Amino acid sequence: MISSANNAQIRHIQLLAKKARARRDERLFLVEGPRMFYEAPPERIERAYLSESFYQEMLDRRILDQVPWELVADRVFAQAAETVHSQGVLCVMRCMDYGMEALLRKDDPLLLLLEDLQDPGNMGTIFRTAEGAGVDGIILTKHCVDIYNPKTIRSTMGAVYRVPFVCLESEEIPRVLALLKKKGVATCAAHLRGNRTYDRESYIGGTAFLIGNEGNGLSQGLSAAADIKVRIPMEGRLESLNAGVAAAILMYEAYRQRRGAE
Amino acid sequence: MISSANNAQIRHIQLLAKKARARRDERLFLVEGPRMFYEAPPERIERAYLSESFYQEMLDRRILDQVPWELVADRVFAQAAETVHSQGVLCVMRCMDYGMEALLRKDDPLLLLLEDLQDPGNMGTIFRTAEGAGVDGIILTKHCVDIYNPKTIRSTMGAVYRVPFVCLESEEIPRVLALLKKKGVATCAAHLRGNRTYDRESYIGGTAFLIGNEGNGLSQGLSAAADIKVRIPMEGRLESLNAGVAAAILMYEAYRQRRGAE
Repeated sequence: MISSANNAQIRHIQLLAKKARARRDERLFLVEGPRMFYEAPPERIERAYLSESFYQEMLDRRILDQVPWELVADRVFAQAAETVHSQGVLCVMRCMDYGMEALLRKDDPLLLLLEDLQDPGNMGTIFRTAEGAGVDGIILTKHCVDIYNPKTIRSTMGAVYRVPFVCLESEEIPRVLALLKKKGVATCAAHLRGNRTYDRESYIGGTAFLIGNEGNGLSQGLSAAADIKVRIPMEGRLESLNAGVAAAILMYEAYRQRRGAE
Repeated sequence: MISSANNAQIRHIQLLAKKARARRDERLFLVEGPRMFYEAPPERIERAYLSESFYQEMLDRRILDQVPWELVADRVFAQAAETVHSQGVLCVMRCMDYGMEALLRKDDPLLLLLEDLQDPGNMGTIFRTAEGAGVDGIILTKHCVDIYNPKTIRSTMGAVYRVPFVCLESEEIPRVLALLKKKGVATCAAHLRGNRTYDRESYIGGTAFLIGNEGNGLSQGLSAAADIKVRIPMEGRLESLNAGVAAAILMYEAYRQRRGAE
């Protein structure tokens, strides 16, 4: 049992929680809480850390036969976790490594491309909604908030395990847009000055929604590259909708059409 | 000019930022930042506080003829604001005081009833989306997060000034449900085990969506009282959507139908 907060593994956990660079260099990230533990693909768990209390309260311990794990004194666990979300269990996980082919496995895929999205909660919520709407994959540009940020991971409610995604370097974007075109996936920019109303277009064929940054919307480059620009109508005096809400409205309109077409 | 952090007005601002009870007792709340200042209904501004730098940079000072205001030394302002969101301007505002009649002014209104919603960001985002979708008013139960919480106010992006709302004591709920029935407003509960799919129902007539708490969904009582229970379909293994996302999907489906029917 780990009984000191100076233990090297505990210090490693604290580092992974705080430093995006450490997560990137080691290709490891952290998940907190029972839901994220029980829903984790066992083969991705590098090591699980259970507080004594959590271990004692576990009703079904079979998962512990499948993954490396450590018991941690309650007092030390509380220091390692630093948030109220862990509730006695943390895992160090190996990062996912999807390629574009994982996102394009199905005919007529429904995809998202998120450009420089900044808010961890928005990013996590978009993953969660995407799983619900049957999205086949998410493309993230390099300057998006780290998907492995603990707050993002938490907001996905487990969807991060199940929705394939790729993170693009800026110079890869043209190649990926060309690939989408070749595969017959229409790119559809969410744009405040789009010339088409989002619910008058068909998303039954392969579709990738392009969603911009919270403050600035889509870049000029991505807007210009899109096949169509759609606008979500708004009453009142708002400048824009929240990026996670706009993405949800588009994804669920596509899903509504696709369910209707079945 | 206010040049001391011990100034009574500065201490009052800090109190209003932190204490829901102080806001409730005094019927005052705080807004931060240029957007919330310029969009505020002038008659609700009790007093505006401008940092020296903000005042010097103002291009148009006409608003200062309409509202009481104070200049605050930059150093003192930074202490009063405590967040990065103020950007040199704060206002103490008088709380809104709508009654149910403000929400029922139009025929066939589109309304929301939020039950015990806990997250300030969710609450603010729902107000923002509601303005966009043309919602006529929002009913809040007593145990919702304080709408005047600074984080909620900020997330509304100004919609809090423009979407009428009422906060109900628990014992008022039956009377309000009876009033909705009398006015021909159908109550429509968002429910994970609803027996109807949300996009197969009509929301052209008066409609009130009932949205439950993030963790627990709608209470037994409100679920049972609703005219219909609708379910938002979900793929994958999610338990639920984020409450703000679920509300957005319902509001925009109603708005889609209402625009189509025009």
